[in-house]
Amino acid sequence: MRMKLYTYFRSSAAFRVRIALNLKGLAYEAAFVHLPKGEHREPEYTALNPQALVPALLDDGSLLTQSLAIIEYLEETHPKPPLLPKDAPGRARVRSLALLVACEIHPLNNLRVLQYLVKQMGHSEEDKNKWYHHWIHDGLAKLEAQLTSIPGTSRFCHGDAPTMADCCLVPQIFNAKRFDCDTSHAPTAMRVFDACMQLDAFQRAQPSRQPDAE
Amino acid sequence: MRMKLYTYFRSSAAFRVRIALNLKGLAYEAAFVHLPKGEHREPEYTALNPQALVPALLDDGSLLTQSLAIIEYLEETHPKPPLLPKDAPGRARVRSLALLVACEIHPLNNLRVLQYLVKQMGHSEEDKNKWYHHWIHDGLAKLEAQLTSIPGTSRFCHGDAPTMADCCLVPQIFNAKRFDCDTSHAPTAMRVFDACMQLDAFQRAQPSRQPDAE
Repeated sequence: MRMKLYTYFRSSAAFRVRIALNLKGLAYEAAFVHLPKGEHREPEYTALNPQALVPALLDDGSLLTQSLAIIEYLEETHPKPPLLPKDAPGRARVRSLALLVACEIHPLNNLRVLQYLVKQMGHSEEDKNKWYHHWIHDGLAKLEAQLTSIPGTSRFCHGDAPTMADCCLVPQIFNAKRFDCDTSHAPTAMRVFDACMQLDAFQRAQPSRQPDAE
Repeated sequence: MRMKLYTYFRSSAAFRVRIALNLKGLAYEAAFVHLPKGEHREPEYTALNPQALVPALLDDGSLLTQSLAIIEYLEETHPKPPLLPKDAPGRARVRSLALLVACEIHPLNNLRVLQYLVKQMGHSEEDKNKWYHHWIHDGLAKLEAQLTSIPGTSRFCHGDAPTMADCCLVPQIFNAKRFDCDTSHAPTAMRVFDACMQLDAFQRAQPSRQPDAE
């Protein structure tokens, strides 16, 4: 049976998993969960995924959650092409880059946090955008520093084939562009982004190419 | 040569790695990085770890960053006792629980975010505490839902031996307790917390037992 991905076109966590599925050449059925409408909080979805977040992947009766856990699962169940290098320090480097995006940048700028700033804390759109730009700027500076000062970066974040790190970098850069964030202090990250976007697996995964895109 | 852990007693990401090192019986040298004094932003430290975050682990000439990448590295280089189950869906479940803490709860409440709310956004201590409690409450509800509705939880988050998920749960509960957050809606998480704290590996890793504790 085909895998089923619960996704929303603009979710960057879902975007990461779409890239990984494409890179591994895995076909999947898409189920759309409209986040701004709150469909992820509906009982029908939370019965399936108690975290009430997208993405989730249904495979062989198991419901898998959290984008990086899903990508690790795909790596273990469909090892080729690999999204992690073979050596332990290299694997740690790739995971660290992926986690830098997933733990330090993205969580501060996702929809529910931005909504909380405006609705619960009374901030203006301008304040919200300043917050957004601040954490993107700070995060991209850290990403750039890691890419340039710890050896391993080549055409992609780590070596000459895409890895889990690239699956995280690309959606984050899409978000930065969407909110008109300055990325000039992260030339290496942007060069890697451009290299990724030359690949069909990344192109097909992008928000505007999803059936639920608005 | 012994591993060297760059740590701060109160960092919950460093706390996760201290637990993992203890569970695996690995001795390490501790180097203390005082976060409130900003020592992580000093050139001496950023030359080593360009992410300017703790923890970092120096092992065999490699500098490893991001707590979950470090724990995965320890799992690969020192497989016993395992901190991940053997089956792919079980591994995904454990990683998802760990990432729920690391990506959805902790990033919103770490020191630099709280400082930004007060110093840059002009919020009061009361606002800051409300923010803190909100995300802890929301995150623990998701964690509890995942622990109770997706089979696998037993004495610990997954089965009867501690895993990477417990390494993340325990520091998060410490933070919740420190800020007097209500945890009554997460009885399973609290029961697992209590089971973990009966183990020496968790006890020795806690903030108050660190040489740099204030």
